[in-house]
Amino acid sequence: MEERNFPTIEGPVCPRPFHHMEKIVLGHGSGGRMTRDLVEKIFLPLLSSPPLLAGNDFATLPQVKNGSVLAVSTDCHVVSPLFFPGGDIGRLSVCGTVNDVAMSGAQPYYITAGFILEEGLPVSTLVRILESMKAAAEEAGIQIVAGDTKVVEKGKADGVFIITSGVGLIHRSQKISGDQAKPGDVVLISGTIGDHGIAVLSERGDLGFSAQVLSDVAPLNHLIQAILQTAPNTHVLRDPTRGGLATTLNEIALQSQIGIRLEERLIPINPAVRAACEMLGFDPLYIANEGKVIVIVPAEEADQVIQVMSSHPYGKNAARIGVVHELPVGRVLLQTTIGATRILDILEGEMLPRIC
Amino acid sequence: MEERNFPTIEGPVCPRPFHHMEKIVLGHGSGGRMTRDLVEKIFLPLLSSPPLLAGNDFATLPQVKNGSVLAVSTDCHVVSPLFFPGGDIGRLSVCGTVNDVAMSGAQPYYITAGFILEEGLPVSTLVRILESMKAAAEEAGIQIVAGDTKVVEKGKADGVFIITSGVGLIHRSQKISGDQAKPGDVVLISGTIGDHGIAVLSERGDLGFSAQVLSDVAPLNHLIQAILQTAPNTHVLRDPTRGGLATTLNEIALQSQIGIRLEERLIPINPAVRAACEMLGFDPLYIANEGKVIVIVPAEEADQVIQVMSSHPYGKNAARIGVVHELPVGRVLLQTTIGATRILDILEGEMLPRIC
Repeated sequence: MEERNFPTIEGPVCPRPFHHMEKIVLGHGSGGRMTRDLVEKIFLPLLSSPPLLAGNDFATLPQVKNGSVLAVSTDCHVVSPLFFPGGDIGRLSVCGTVNDVAMSGAQPYYITAGFILEEGLPVSTLVRILESMKAAAEEAGIQIVAGDTKVVEKGKADGVFIITSGVGLIHRSQKISGDQAKPGDVVLISGTIGDHGIAVLSERGDLGFSAQVLSDVAPLNHLIQAILQTAPNTHVLRDPTRGGLATTLNEIALQSQIGIRLEERLIPINPAVRAACEMLGFDPLYIANEGKVIVIVPAEEADQVIQVMSSHPYGKNAARIGVVHELPVGRVLLQTTIGATRILDILEGEMLPRIC
Repeated sequence: MEERNFPTIEGPVCPRPFHHMEKIVLGHGSGGRMTRDLVEKIFLPLLSSPPLLAGNDFATLPQVKNGSVLAVSTDCHVVSPLFFPGGDIGRLSVCGTVNDVAMSGAQPYYITAGFILEEGLPVSTLVRILESMKAAAEEAGIQIVAGDTKVVEKGKADGVFIITSGVGLIHRSQKISGDQAKPGDVVLISGTIGDHGIAVLSERGDLGFSAQVLSDVAPLNHLIQAILQTAPNTHVLRDPTRGGLATTLNEIALQSQIGIRLEERLIPINPAVRAACEMLGFDPLYIANEGKVIVIVPAEEADQVIQVMSSHPYGKNAARIGVVHELPVGRVLLQTTIGATRILDILEGEMLPRIC
């Protein structure tokens, strides 16, 4: 049988015991600690495969017959409302998966799209969403190659859910993964944080005022290819989506078993996002982004990466925001603007449901 | 940029005009003519890529650096209820995508899985579903390599929807596709039809009685590899899911621009399925299957395929059911048991919503 010749991906067996949780709650979709609990205690022990256990948003898969490596990823999109300032579920569903594949260092080529439609959805709404997907796919330079559509009764879905999967190829030998951050590395961000989450909340009316903020939703694959050309020793690429910058850096600190120290004054934040967060008591470090990338590189490559990002439309406000240390292992520390040091923990429970 | 070296898949531009439809209705998910209308008039003109236009349940994708070809597919699973005689949404979600990839002649290797969970879903239900996915993946010999989980508010989904995508590799030069049927070919089916649809209906209580029928949901990749070893010139493989045998053969007749003639007395049907259909006025030729494959091969290879299928657990009741003719182009004709000839059209509208 041919699959005998195809390597099973080897890795550690998931050691975590099954853990009792009774019912799914919204917090399980937050991207924070409750999501991690659900994934680690329920999904991984039951579906464990080494790529899943690696803890990235993509899987890299060996190919038998040549040196290149497949990268695949999948993302469910349930954002509410379907249209928001700067984007919509269609653009989000293409960019989300393009970006997850690109974060492996792969060039994404193909996307599949599954649609779960609620009975009664206006077809004109669907058309607007598909037009937006097409435009995003063209911008990213990828093709939507397979699809599926299901319809459920009114009240059994919410307009439309779109699930995309992406396939790319990694043409390089340097491994890029959340477990590759090294002490001495520099932490970069490609621009302002929190824009996507605040734009969606504003459109929902949850702010009580209009925030004048546009979502940053964008395909980052071209930006990432430019980064990798200038910084071939890049260690980590990851987009800080659900759970925001703080939660994503915590994941990396745990995967790499290192500590990360951030300087608050260096983190770029749109003034309108900062103002909205202050009024609502949100911390922008935990707000979702859909068009930003965290880049962790050896110190000697950091300046060139900042330069490359700054000259790209999706990296205009790129900044160096922190440094990787040996200690404290698995922790992210924030040096605040008033000089204090604060532990930035992973997001607890639910802050903003259905943000992506 | 690397994507310049990666071939864009070329093919005809979709010629169909945008067509007015107002709202999504359940019939758009039936797998029959309304689904085809939605796909042809809305999805294809907007998302057109040559693999989508090819009209198969999979896309085959060229690879630059070696001779093998990627096959990918995606499937949304919204079956209600989640558990039914012979299977559940977990087994269905693995088998559905394994089978779609396998129908290209590929060996499926990897699956990604997206979960949309409704707030309030008992975690014990999720655990049962994941255990079933794991068992099906092991049986198929594939790995679940990437996943995503989203949670929506109570009443915005229905328990759990599972969306899987599969990746496989085609290691052969013979093209297998719905457009490859040739006059003189023989049409085979791997076993009894209608079992899945009737099992789900029975569990829903829609029959008014218990049908004692088990769903046939099964991974067919090993069966298909065995078929291809004995019949290297196989022209078409397709699983008759939504819309059933009749609708699937109509799709093939249109893609290949040939006519298909079936003999009703040769089509294997479980007596309990036949009885349930007679009581309810359903035609088993339009009922969904989840563990059957239609095989269209040159006449000289048909006997060996029947023999190979019959000796496999998932091909026990394999039968030769019809022949491919030049005419009538795009039509399926049924010679009934009483000797009349009937046109078997594509399924109209909705017969059985949320069957998969």
